[in-house]
Amino acid sequence: MQNIDDIPALVRAIGARASAAARELATASSEQKARALHAAADRILADQDSILAANARDMDAAREKGLSGAMIDRLLLDEGRIAAMAEGLRAVADQPDPIGQVIAEWDMETGLHIQRVRTPLGVIGVIYESRPNVTADAGALCVKAGNAVILRGGSESFHSSGAIHACLAAGLEAAGLPGDAIQRVPVRDREAVAEMLRLVEHIDVIVPRGGKGLVGLVQREARVPVFAHLEGICHVYVDASADPEKAVEVVLNAKTRRTGICGAAECLLVHRDIAEGLGQRIVDRLMEAGVEVRAGAGLRGSVPASEDDFGKEFLDMIIAAKVVDDVDGAIAHIREYGSNHTECVLAEDDAVADRFMQRLDSAILMRNASTQFADGGEFGMGAEIGIATGKLHARGPVGAEQLTSFKYLVRGDGTLRR
Amino acid sequence: MQNIDDIPALVRAIGARASAAARELATASSEQKARALHAAADRILADQDSILAANARDMDAAREKGLSGAMIDRLLLDEGRIAAMAEGLRAVADQPDPIGQVIAEWDMETGLHIQRVRTPLGVIGVIYESRPNVTADAGALCVKAGNAVILRGGSESFHSSGAIHACLAAGLEAAGLPGDAIQRVPVRDREAVAEMLRLVEHIDVIVPRGGKGLVGLVQREARVPVFAHLEGICHVYVDASADPEKAVEVVLNAKTRRTGICGAAECLLVHRDIAEGLGQRIVDRLMEAGVEVRAGAGLRGSVPASEDDFGKEFLDMIIAAKVVDDVDGAIAHIREYGSNHTECVLAEDDAVADRFMQRLDSAILMRNASTQFADGGEFGMGAEIGIATGKLHARGPVGAEQLTSFKYLVRGDGTLRR
Repeated sequence: MQNIDDIPALVRAIGARASAAARELATASSEQKARALHAAADRILADQDSILAANARDMDAAREKGLSGAMIDRLLLDEGRIAAMAEGLRAVADQPDPIGQVIAEWDMETGLHIQRVRTPLGVIGVIYESRPNVTADAGALCVKAGNAVILRGGSESFHSSGAIHACLAAGLEAAGLPGDAIQRVPVRDREAVAEMLRLVEHIDVIVPRGGKGLVGLVQREARVPVFAHLEGICHVYVDASADPEKAVEVVLNAKTRRTGICGAAECLLVHRDIAEGLGQRIVDRLMEAGVEVRAGAGLRGSVPASEDDFGKEFLDMIIAAKVVDDVDGAIAHIREYGSNHTECVLAEDDAVADRFMQRLDSAILMRNASTQFADGGEFGMGAEIGIATGKLHARGPVGAEQLTSFKYLVRGDGTLRR
Repeated sequence: MQNIDDIPALVRAIGARASAAARELATASSEQKARALHAAADRILADQDSILAANARDMDAAREKGLSGAMIDRLLLDEGRIAAMAEGLRAVADQPDPIGQVIAEWDMETGLHIQRVRTPLGVIGVIYESRPNVTADAGALCVKAGNAVILRGGSESFHSSGAIHACLAAGLEAAGLPGDAIQRVPVRDREAVAEMLRLVEHIDVIVPRGGKGLVGLVQREARVPVFAHLEGICHVYVDASADPEKAVEVVLNAKTRRTGICGAAECLLVHRDIAEGLGQRIVDRLMEAGVEVRAGAGLRGSVPASEDDFGKEFLDMIIAAKVVDDVDGAIAHIREYGSNHTECVLAEDDAVADRFMQRLDSAILMRNASTQFADGGEFGMGAEIGIATGKLHARGPVGAEQLTSFKYLVRGDGTLRR
C-alpha cells in the first residue's frame, strides 16, 4: 500500500517507476505495443458495466456538488462513448509506429554515415479535468510513441478514470509490457499536480488538457516543458476577393458546428470594401443561426462590440466582428488579439492569401477552410493529445509522432577526426 | 543614450526591439540575409585594426586580473582568427536558407491540402563567456534562420565583442535589414543575465555557451527554454569484437586530438575478454601519448581509478578506464555516469553495435568513429551555435536549421467540417 500522506514522495516514486518503464518501452516492438492497445480496447468493452458503475459514482458526486450542465455532459459515459473510446484505442494501435523511423540520413566526405532516427521522449505527464476519455486517448498515444505516461485526471472523474486506467494496465500486462508504463496518480490532492510540474528528473513533458485556469497554472508554474495552448482565439478574415458562397458557409461552419472546441471561430474580420455587402450578409446569416454578433462600426450585429470582445474566447454562440482596411489590417488585428492557434483567410486572390499565411505566425493558417479542422484526426494524425501553440518541438495537433525525440547514429570504419 | 541604471528595464527594452526586428526578419529574402552576412564579413576584414585594438584592451585587463592561460588563449584574437571569423560568416551566408522550406505535405479526403513549413523561432538569447568569435558565429546562424538575437558576452571579452558586433550591425544595415536583429547587451552586470532568463515575452530560446558553472546556472534559473549541454562525458566502449587497429587509433583520437572540447572522450570501457590484450594495449598507447589513465581493476594504468573518476569531465589529458562484462555492462555504466552527449562503440559484431546504439539514448551514438566528430561542421551543418543534450526540439549540433520552428498551412476550397 502506498503512503499517501507524503504526496510529493508518492509522486516522485511514481516518476521513478515511470522512468524505468520508459526504458523498457523504448525498445518494445511495434507489434507488442499494438497488442497492448488492442487488449486494452477489448478489456474496456468487457468491463463496460464496471466502468459505467464507476462513472455513476462520479455523476452522483457531480450533481451533489452542483456542477454545470456542460461539465456534467463532459463527465458522462454511456455505451456509445465507451465504444468510441475502444475504437480510439484500436485506431492508435493500427497507426504506423513512429519509433525507429529514419528521419534523415546522409554521408560525409570523412566517410561517416549519419542517420537521425526517431526515439521516444521518455515520460509524459498528462494533467486533465473532467473528461474521462482523456485517460484512454492520452495513454494510447504515449504508449504508441514508446513513452511512459503519468495521468492525473480531475477529481470529478476520479472513479471513471480509475476504471479506464485498470483496463489500460491490463492491456499492457497482456502484451508483456510493464504496467508502470501507464500510471495514474491515485490521490485527488492538488499537491500532486504541483509536484509533477517540478519533477524534471522523471518527467520530460507535461500536457495539460482543460480550461484556461488549469493551462495557465501549468504554464506559469511548470519547470518541466509544456505542450499546450492557453486559448483558441481563432479569427476568420473575409477579403474583398472572397467567393461569397464559400465565405458564408465557411464562417457559419467555423462558428457554429461546435462552439465549445478550441478551433471554433471567435472573431470575424471583414474587408472594408465588402462590409456592406458580403460582410453584412454573413453577419445576418450568423444571427439567423442563433449567433450573437458583437459588431464594430460598419456592421449591424446583435449588439455593438466593446473593446473587451476582441481577443476573447467565447466558446459559445457569440462572435466578435470588425471591419478592417485590408489584409494588413487583419494581420495587425490578429497579431494584437490572437492566441497563435488557428486563423483563416477567405480570399480568391492568391497574393492576399499568401500574405496572410506568410506574415502570421499561428500554429495553423487556413485558406478557404473552416477553422474547425484544427484537429489531429482531421490532419490525418489518427488522434491527438492536444494542440500546442508554443514554437518549440510540437506545434498544432500533437499526435504520437509529436511525442517523440530523436538521436543521431553515426557509423564509421575506424574513422578519425583530423 | 540608454539608461543603464535600471538593468531589467534596459534588457526588456532590448527584448521588445528584438521582437519587432524578428517580425521583419521573418519575411526577409534569402538573398537579403546572405547579403547582410557577406557585408558583415567584409566589414570585419576592413575593421581588423580596430577589432585588434579592442581585443588588446580586453587582453590587458585579463592579464591584470590574472586569468588562466587557457582563458587568455580563448580570448585572444589575431589576424588568423579574424580571417576565420569572416570565413565563418561567409560559409553560413552561402548555406541554403531553411526558412520557407516545406518539411512535409499531404492531402486529406476532405479536400484539404496540408503543408508543414519551416519558420523562424523568433528571438534567440545567447549567453557566453570569453570567446569573442561566438559573437559572429551566433549572430550569423540566428540571422540565417530569420531570428533576431540578443548577445550577452562575457565581461572579459566586452570590448572585442563590441567591435565585432559593430561589424554585424553594419552588415545588416548594408542589406536593408533592421539593426536590432543583432543586439548586444551593453552592460557587464550579471543582473542582465538574470533578466534575460525570465524574459519569456520576448525571448524564445536561450543558448548558453561556456563552462559548467554558466550552463548549470542557466538551466536552473531560466524560464525561457534552453538549448544546451551541461557536460560532455563521452564514453568509448571497446567490445571483444573490435578491430584492434581501428580501436587503438579511434580511442587515441577521441581522447587526445583536442582535450578541451565537449566531444573529447572521458571514459574508456573495455570488454572483460580483451582487457588483458587489446584493452591493456590501448591503455599503454594512451600513456605513451601522455595521457594519465585512471584505471579500474583488470587494467594497469597511470594511477588506480577512484569512484569519482567515473562521470567526470576532465577536459584534459586524463581518462578513466574500466573493465565491463559485455555491451550490457557498458550500457549500464553509461546510463549511470553519462551525460547523454556522445558515446562510441568499437565493434565489428553488428548485433553488439546495434544493441549499443538502440539502447542508449545519448544525442549522438557513434560506431567505429571518434567522438571528436560531435560537431556541427563535421555533421555537414556548416556551423553550430552549440550542442544540445535535451530531448526537445534541437538535439546534437544546433545549426541554422535547428534554430527554426514551423507552422501548418492548410488550403481548402470553401471546405467545411462535417
